[in-house]
Amino acid sequence: MTSSYRINYQLRAHKRDPLIEFIKGLLLTPFVLHAKPRKPVLNSPQVGGHESIDTILATGTGTSNVNQDDRNDYQDEDKPMVDANLQRYLEIMKSVEAMVEEHRRKAVKGVPEHSRLHRIVPSVASFFTPLPLEAAFLVANAKHSIAARRFVPPSFNDIRRILNTAQVMAIAPTLSLITFDGDMTLYDDGTSFTENSPLIPLLITLMRAGLRVAIVTAAGYPGDASKYEERLMGLLRVFDQQKLSEKLLERFYVLGGECNYLFRCGWKKSEVTGESVVGLTYIHPESYQPSDMLAWKHEEIQELLDVAEENLKRSVSAMNLKTMILRKSRAVGIVPIGGTKIAREQLDECVLSTQQRLLEYQQMSGPSKTAIPFCVFNGGNDVFVDIGNKLIGVQVLQTYLGAAPEATVHVGDQFLSTGNDFATRSSCCTLWIISPEETEGVLKELTPLLTIPAEDA
Amino acid sequence: MTSSYRINYQLRAHKRDPLIEFIKGLLLTPFVLHAKPRKPVLNSPQVGGHESIDTILATGTGTSNVNQDDRNDYQDEDKPMVDANLQRYLEIMKSVEAMVEEHRRKAVKGVPEHSRLHRIVPSVASFFTPLPLEAAFLVANAKHSIAARRFVPPSFNDIRRILNTAQVMAIAPTLSLITFDGDMTLYDDGTSFTENSPLIPLLITLMRAGLRVAIVTAAGYPGDASKYEERLMGLLRVFDQQKLSEKLLERFYVLGGECNYLFRCGWKKSEVTGESVVGLTYIHPESYQPSDMLAWKHEEIQELLDVAEENLKRSVSAMNLKTMILRKSRAVGIVPIGGTKIAREQLDECVLSTQQRLLEYQQMSGPSKTAIPFCVFNGGNDVFVDIGNKLIGVQVLQTYLGAAPEATVHVGDQFLSTGNDFATRSSCCTLWIISPEETEGVLKELTPLLTIPAEDA
Amino acid sequence: MTSSYRINYQLRAHKRDPLIEFIKGLLLTPFVLHAKPRKPVLNSPQVGGHESIDTILATGTGTSNVNQDDRNDYQDEDKPMVDANLQRYLEIMKSVEAMVEEHRRKAVKGVPEHSRLHRIVPSVASFFTPLPLEAAFLVANAKHSIAARRFVPPSFNDIRRILNTAQVMAIAPTLSLITFDGDMTLYDDGTSFTENSPLIPLLITLMRAGLRVAIVTAAGYPGDASKYEERLMGLLRVFDQQKLSEKLLERFYVLGGECNYLFRCGWKKSEVTGESVVGLTYIHPESYQPSDMLAWKHEEIQELLDVAEENLKRSVSAMNLKTMILRKSRAVGIVPIGGTKIAREQLDECVLSTQQRLLEYQQMSGPSKTAIPFCVFNGGNDVFVDIGNKLIGVQVLQTYLGAAPEATVHVGDQFLSTGNDFATRSSCCTLWIISPEETEGVLKELTPLLTIPAEDA
Amino acid sequence: MTSSYRINYQLRAHKRDPLIEFIKGLLLTPFVLHAKPRKPVLNSPQVGGHESIDTILATGTGTSNVNQDDRNDYQDEDKPMVDANLQRYLEIMKSVEAMVEEHRRKAVKGVPEHSRLHRIVPSVASFFTPLPLEAAFLVANAKHSIAARRFVPPSFNDIRRILNTAQVMAIAPTLSLITFDGDMTLYDDGTSFTENSPLIPLLITLMRAGLRVAIVTAAGYPGDASKYEERLMGLLRVFDQQKLSEKLLERFYVLGGECNYLFRCGWKKSEVTGESVVGLTYIHPESYQPSDMLAWKHEEIQELLDVAEENLKRSVSAMNLKTMILRKSRAVGIVPIGGTKIAREQLDECVLSTQQRLLEYQQMSGPSKTAIPFCVFNGGNDVFVDIGNKLIGVQVLQTYLGAAPEATVHVGDQFLSTGNDFATRSSCCTLWIISPEETEGVLKELTPLLTIPAEDA
Repeated sequence: MTSSYRINYQLRAHKRDPLIEFIKGLLLTPFVLHAKPRKPVLNSPQVGGHESIDTILATGTGTSNVNQDDRNDYQDEDKPMVDANLQRYLEIMKSVEAMVEEHRRKAVKGVPEHSRLHRIVPSVASFFTPLPLEAAFLVANAKHSIAARRFVPPSFNDIRRILNTAQVMAIAPTLSLITFDGDMTLYDDGTSFTENSPLIPLLITLMRAGLRVAIVTAAGYPGDASKYEERLMGLLRVFDQQKLSEKLLERFYVLGGECNYLFRCGWKKSEVTGESVVGLTYIHPESYQPSDMLAWKHEEIQELLDVAEENLKRSVSAMNLKTMILRKSRAVGIVPIGGTKIAREQLDECVLSTQQRLLEYQQMSGPSKTAIPFCVFNGGNDVFVDIGNKLIGVQVLQTYLGAAPEATVHVGDQFLSTGNDFATRSSCCTLWIISPEETEGVLKELTPLLTIPAEDA
Repeated sequence: MTSSYRINYQLRAHKRDPLIEFIKGLLLTPFVLHAKPRKPVLNSPQVGGHESIDTILATGTGTSNVNQDDRNDYQDEDKPMVDANLQRYLEIMKSVEAMVEEHRRKAVKGVPEHSRLHRIVPSVASFFTPLPLEAAFLVANAKHSIAARRFVPPSFNDIRRILNTAQVMAIAPTLSLITFDGDMTLYDDGTSFTENSPLIPLLITLMRAGLRVAIVTAAGYPGDASKYEERLMGLLRVFDQQKLSEKLLERFYVLGGECNYLFRCGWKKSEVTGESVVGLTYIHPESYQPSDMLAWKHEEIQELLDVAEENLKRSVSAMNLKTMILRKSRAVGIVPIGGTKIAREQLDECVLSTQQRLLEYQQMSGPSKTAIPFCVFNGGNDVFVDIGNKLIGVQVLQTYLGAAPEATVHVGDQFLSTGNDFATRSSCCTLWIISPEETEGVLKELTPLLTIPAEDA
Repeated sequence: MTSSYRINYQLRAHKRDPLIEFIKGLLLTPFVLHAKPRKPVLNSPQVGGHESIDTILATGTGTSNVNQDDRNDYQDEDKPMVDANLQRYLEIMKSVEAMVEEHRRKAVKGVPEHSRLHRIVPSVASFFTPLPLEAAFLVANAKHSIAARRFVPPSFNDIRRILNTAQVMAIAPTLSLITFDGDMTLYDDGTSFTENSPLIPLLITLMRAGLRVAIVTAAGYPGDASKYEERLMGLLRVFDQQKLSEKLLERFYVLGGECNYLFRCGWKKSEVTGESVVGLTYIHPESYQPSDMLAWKHEEIQELLDVAEENLKRSVSAMNLKTMILRKSRAVGIVPIGGTKIAREQLDECVLSTQQRLLEYQQMSGPSKTAIPFCVFNGGNDVFVDIGNKLIGVQVLQTYLGAAPEATVHVGDQFLSTGNDFATRSSCCTLWIISPEETEGVLKELTPLLTIPAEDA
Repeated sequence: MTSSYRINYQLRAHKRDPLIEFIKGLLLTPFVLHAKPRKPVLNSPQVGGHESIDTILATGTGTSNVNQDDRNDYQDEDKPMVDANLQRYLEIMKSVEAMVEEHRRKAVKGVPEHSRLHRIVPSVASFFTPLPLEAAFLVANAKHSIAARRFVPPSFNDIRRILNTAQVMAIAPTLSLITFDGDMTLYDDGTSFTENSPLIPLLITLMRAGLRVAIVTAAGYPGDASKYEERLMGLLRVFDQQKLSEKLLERFYVLGGECNYLFRCGWKKSEVTGESVVGLTYIHPESYQPSDMLAWKHEEIQELLDVAEENLKRSVSAMNLKTMILRKSRAVGIVPIGGTKIAREQLDECVLSTQQRLLEYQQMSGPSKTAIPFCVFNGGNDVFVDIGNKLIGVQVLQTYLGAAPEATVHVGDQFLSTGNDFATRSSCCTLWIISPEETEGVLKELTPLLTIPAEDA
C-alpha cells in the first residue's frame, strides 16, 4: 500500500463499512472460482417473484420449484452449478456467523479485542444479538439471485441487506423499542409523511404488536409540539381516522433535536376546533433525562456553540460562501442565501473543520469541564452543529421506556462513520436502509415475525 | 496489490475514470503537505459568488478582491497560504496540460503509445483539442474554493468539472456541432422536456450562434416523428412560440435508436389542426447513412437480436425475473411486468452476460461476416440491446453535417467505460455532466465564448 | 484505486507475478475463515519430516500417521480442523486447475483471451501441460504445514513452489530437454560449479535418463570453449572422474551469450597434457541457428549496440557514475571502476532507460529493418545489453535437439517480467527457483519420476 | 479498498514502514510529472563519486561542478530539468521536515495526536531531535542521483537512508550513547567480529570522541563474560593491540540477553596466561537494574517461559517440525535437529502463535501480576522467547550512563514492527541499516561531525 494511497484511503475510509467490505471480499473467492459460463439454452423465461422469509427457508435453497418441467433440458447442467455456488456462499456466511458468535463470547468476557473478527476488522462494533447470516443469505438469494449471477458478484448493497435481514430475524422475538431516523428513512429528503405512505399501516402494526415506536430526528423546535405535528401531519391524521386507542397511541414518540425534545402521542383537544384529535404532548426533560444530561450547563453549551459559530464563519469566509448563520438554543448552522446551491465539497469542508475545531477545543479545555456531546452534519445544502446526538437520543428512550440494547433496533440511512445514525451502533441493534422503500421492505420482513398480543389484535 | 484486490479491481475498474483518478492522485501531494490548519479568526462572513470565466481569469487567482478591508486582519495569515496552495495546484495542472500536449504530438506522429501520459494512464483516449487545465482550475477554484479547503481534497467531481471547463474553453472558437444525450442530460430520468426548462433558451442561443444541435437518444421509434415530437413537446412548443426562423430550426436534429432514425426540425403542417407548427421530419437513411451502415443485412441483424434475445431469456430464467421480452426491428429488451422493481445487480447481470455472449458470437462467426455494432445497456428498470451505438450516431452526424472531431462536442452522463456515451470519445470531444443542472452550467460557460454571426444575432 | 497508487503500481507491477498473486488471494478466504485458534495442549513435539511425493500422495492428506497415540488427546479437536482447512485449500487448487485446463482448451481453439483465467489474470502465459495443482498442494502441505498454520497464510513462495511441483509432476513423463540458468540457479551469484555441488549427481541422473541438459547463460565469450570450461571446471572434472561415456556426455550443452555460442560436451585431447579429458566443443552457428537468426546483419547489430552504448554513456554521465564501457561483438555494458558499488536504483535507471531507448529506436526505424532481439539486464553491479535473449536460446536448442515446448523445461531465477528468464515462458515449461538449494529440491522431486532407459541405467 | 485486500494488508502491514511509505508517495508526484525524457546526446561519461556531507551542502545542489566543459552541449537541456526536479523534491522534503517539527511541538504540549503528521501516519513514533530532511536529501542525491533518474522513482531504501542521514546530522552535536544490534549490524548473520572489520577503527573513533558504545544483543549467557569475549574476539584483540587506555575501554559495554547481562570492557588478568589483556567484566544487576526490573519474580518468569514452551511444543507438533527445545534461565526456544532447514513460514507461525498466546496469558492473569516484558523472534533457523527486550536494554543503559533520549542513538536492522529493534524507537533516536556495510556508511557520516575532546585526541 503506497503512501498516497494510504493518505487517500484515510480521507475516504469513512465512506466504507469495514465489516461489509470484509464479507464482500470473502464472497469473491467462490464467485471467481465457481461462476462458470454456461452453455446457451433456448427456453422461455420463468416467472419468479419474492416469497416470504418462511417459505424460502422452508424450501431450503430459496429457489422456487415451480415450472420444473420447463427447465428440465438445461437444469441438469445449470442447477447443480447454482446449487454448488450457493453451498459455497452459505458456507462462508456460516463461518462469518460463527466469527460473530465468537466475538460476542469474547465481549461477554470483557476482551472483545481478542476475537478473530476484531483482529481482522478492528473497527467492528458490538453485536447485541446473534446474526443468522446463513439463513439471511438464503432470503437475499431468493430475491436477488446472488448465486445465479455469473458476472455481478455479491455487492455492498447485497450484503447490507443480508445484515438487515439477519438482524430482523434475530431481534423479532425480543424487540420492544424501534426507533426511526426521519429524512430518507420515513420520507424522502426534505418532504413529510403523507397519508398514503405505505409505511403508516406498518407502523401501526408495530404498535399493535406492543412495540414502542419513536422517530429520532435532527429537526429541533424546543418544546414546540405543533411544528412536529405539522411535519407528521399525514401520519397523525391516519391515526385519527383509524380511531386508534389511547393505549396504542401512547406507544408512539417523537424525539427532536437529536435527543433534546421528547413528545408522546395521544388524543388531545385541538386548539383550533376544540375537538379531540391525535397530537403530540411535550414531556419535560426532568421526567426522563438522565442526571448527566441535565447537568449540561447553559453557559457551557453556549460557549461550545460560540466556538462552532466562529469556525463556521471562518470557513464561510475562506471559501467565499453566500450563507447566513442560524443560531438556536441548542444548535448553530449555516444556510445558503439567495437560493444558491453550495457544493458538497464545500459543505464537507465546513463539517470537518468544525468537527476538528470542537474536538480540539474540548481537549484543550481539560478534564475539569464536562465534554458536552455534539454532532456536526452536512444537511444536503446546509451545515448544522447540534448539542447531543442520536446515540444519546436512543439511550434516553431506552432508559425511559425500559428497553435493553438487545430489545432495541434503530432504523436509519446514515451509518457510515460520518453519518449521524452511526453512533447509535454502540447501544442498540441497527438496520441500515437507503430509502423509504427499503424501510418498507425491512418492516415487511419484520412484522410477520412479531407476535401480536391478544389484547391488541 | 493482492490478487483478490485485483479481481475486485477488475470487476470495479469500469466504475473509475483513470485520467481523473490520475489527476486526483497528483493533487493529493500539495493537499497533504500544504493545507495547514489556520489560527481562529473572528470575522463576519464574506459574500462571494460565481463569476464569469473571463472575470476570474482576468483577476488571476480566482478570488475576488472585493471587501479587502474586512479581511485585513486575517489575510496576512491566510491569504499567502491559500495562494501558495493555489500555485502548487496550478503547477500540477500545467504539467498535466503539457503531458496532454505531448500525447497529442505523439498521436500526430502515429505513436500515441510512446507518450508519457499513455505509459501512466494506458487507457487514455484521444484529445482533439488542447486542454487549458491551468486556466480551468482557476475557474473551478473560484466556484468551489479548492485551494482554500483544508479537509476536503480535490474530488473526482472537482476534476471532472475542470476537464469540462477546459474542454469548453478549448473548443468554443471552432465548435460547429454539439450533440446531447437525452435522459439525465437534458431532463431527469424518464421525464421529458418541459416548456420552462432553463436549457431551452441556451439551446436556442447555440443555434443562433450557427451551431448544429442534435439530440442522440437510445429511444427508438422507426421513422415515427410523432413519438419524438411528443417527448420533446416542451422544447418544440417554445420554438413555435418564439417563431424561430426555418433557417434556425434546420440546425436542430434528433437521432433516435442510437444512430438509426434521423429527424430534422422545421415548420410543418399539423396533422391535427392543419396549422403550421414546429415539428420533426424523417430523413431517409439513404441520404445520410454511410455505405458500410447501409450494408448491414436485415437477416444478420435479426440473427444478432435472436442471440441476444436467447441470452436475455436464459438470464431471466436463471434469476427467476418477472419480465417480458420486447422485440423491435433494431432492438430487443426485457421490461418488468406487474410493476416489479428489478435489482440493479440483476439488471447488470443481464447486461454483462448478454454483452459477453454477443462478443463471443461475433468472434466465433469469423471474419467473413460483418460485425454489426451493438450496445447493451441497463436502463434503470429494463435492459436493452440496440443495433448501432452513439459513436456511430455522432459519426453519422459529423459526416452528414460536415463537422470534424475537433469541431464536435458530445454532452452526456454515461462516460464510465460501461456507459453508452463512452464510445463517442474516440470521435469527438466530450463533456461529462451528471445532471441537467450541470448541462445548464456547461452551456452557461460555453455560450458567452461563442461568436453569434451577425445574421442570427 | 487512487491514481498515485496506480502510478506506483505501474512502477512496481513488474515485481509481482499476477498468477501467483491471484492464487494467493483465493487462498486467503479459507485461511481467514477457518484457521481458528486452538485450545492449549501439553504434549511432546513430534518428529516429522519430508517424504517423497509418492508417499504423500499415497497417504492422501500428506500428514504422516506416525505417533498417532501421542496425539490422541488433542487430535479430536485439532485434526478435523486441519483436515477441513486442507479440504478447502484443495478445493480451491482444484478449481484453479480446472481454470488452467479451460484456458488450455481455449488456447487450442485459438481464443485464449476468452478463457475465464485470462479475463481475471490478463497477463497469464501459455501452459504447455496441465498443472496438477491439487496434488502439488498436498506435497507442499506435507513439507510446509500450510493447512496447520493459523497465523501465516499461504505465501508467495508457497505458491511458487506448488506451481513448480505441479509442473514437475506434469512434465516428467514426456520431458526430453531441460535447460538451466547459471548464476543463482546452479551456483551462487558470481561463483562457479564446485566438485562437491550436490547438483552434479542430479544432473548426471538427468543425462542417464536420456534427457538433454543445457546451461543457457548470459556470459558471452565468442567461440571460446576454454572460458566456459573454466567456469564449469568442477562439473566437468566430476564427469571426468566418473568416466562418463561419450554417449552420455553428448547430452550436455552450454549456450553462451544468451543464444549466440553453442558448445557440446565430450571427451577431447587436453591442449596442455595431451591426455583425453572431458571438455566442450564449439558448434558452428550455421549448423544449428535458424535462418532468421543467421540473417541478422553485422552492421545492424553494431548500430543497435551503438545506440545502446550512447544511452548508457548518457545515463552514466547524468548520474555521475564511476564506470567504464565494455564493448563486445554482440554485447555492450558498463562496469564500475575503482571498486565502487553502484546503487541498485542507479543500475535499474540504466537498464530501464536503455531498454526504452532501444525500443523507440527500433519502432522509429520502421518495418523495413529486422528488429533484432536484445535484452538489457542489471547484473548486480553492472548493466549489459546482449544481442538475442534466452527465449531464442531455448528455441534454438529445441529446434536443434528436436524438443517440443511440452517436452522442454527451463529452470531459472529471473521470472519476474523484468528478468531474463521471463521470456522463455512463451516457448517452454518453466521452474522458478530462487537458489541453488531450490534447484536441488526440484531435481530431487523430478528424478524419481523419470524412467531411466535400460541402456543407461 | 476491498476487504480481502484489507485482510492481506493487515497480514502484511508489519512489512511496511508507514512514515517511509508516506514520504515515498509524496515524492511520486514530482517524479511522475517532471521526469521527462531527454534527447539523445553523444558524450563521454563523467567520473563522479561520493563527496562528504559538508562538500555537498556547500555546493548547494549536490552535483559536483567538475568537467563542466564536457557537458556543455547537453547541459542546456538537461541541467535545468534536473535542477527543477531537485527543487521540487527539496520542497517536499522541507514540508515533511516542517510536519515533523509541528509533531514535536504538539508532543511537547502533550497532544501529539493533534499533529497533522499523526493524522496522516497514525503509527508515527516520537522524534527526539528535528530531522533536517532537505539537507539530507541533497546528500542522498549526490550519492544516488535521485533527481537525475527518469525511470526509477525515489525508493524505500532511498528514503530510509535519507532519514538516517538526517538523524546523524541532527544528533551528532549532542550524542553521548550509541548502541548497536549485533548480527547483520556489526557482522554478517551468524558470524563474529573479525580483526580486519572496517567497523573497528570507527568504533574506536566513537569512543575517543567521548561516546559510550554498547552492543545490545539477543544472545544470552548468564554472567558468562568468556562467551561474549569469544564472539567479540576480533574486536577485543584490536583494542589490545592498540593498547587503548582503561579510560577509553571503560566506554565500551556489552548487554546480552536483550537487557539481562551487562559487561564493561577493560584490562584484566588473563585466566590462561596471567597476562594483562582486554576483556569484559560482569556488572551485577543490583548496581544498574531499575527496581521494577529487579522485582520480576523468578517463579513468574518461569511460569511465562512454561507457557511459551508449551505453545512452542504445540506448534512444533501441529507442523511436524524436527526440532528440540532449548530452555535457559531467561529464555526458551526451538532449534532444528538433524541439520534440517525450517521454512520461514513455519518459523513465523511459531513466533506469531507464541506471541499471541503470551499476550492472552498476561491479559487473562489480570492486573494483580506484573506483566513481565518479553520478546519472541525468528532467528533465521530457530525461534526464541526472551525475557525483556531491547527497549528495556536501551533504557537500562540510558539510566546507568546518564544519557537522555535525544543523546542516544540505536543502530539496528530490525525496525519493521515485528523486528526486535523496533521497540527502541520509543526511547531513543534510531538508525535503520540493512548490512554491516551500511553501518560503516552511517558511521562514516557521523564521525566527522563529532568533536574529539582534547584529552582523547
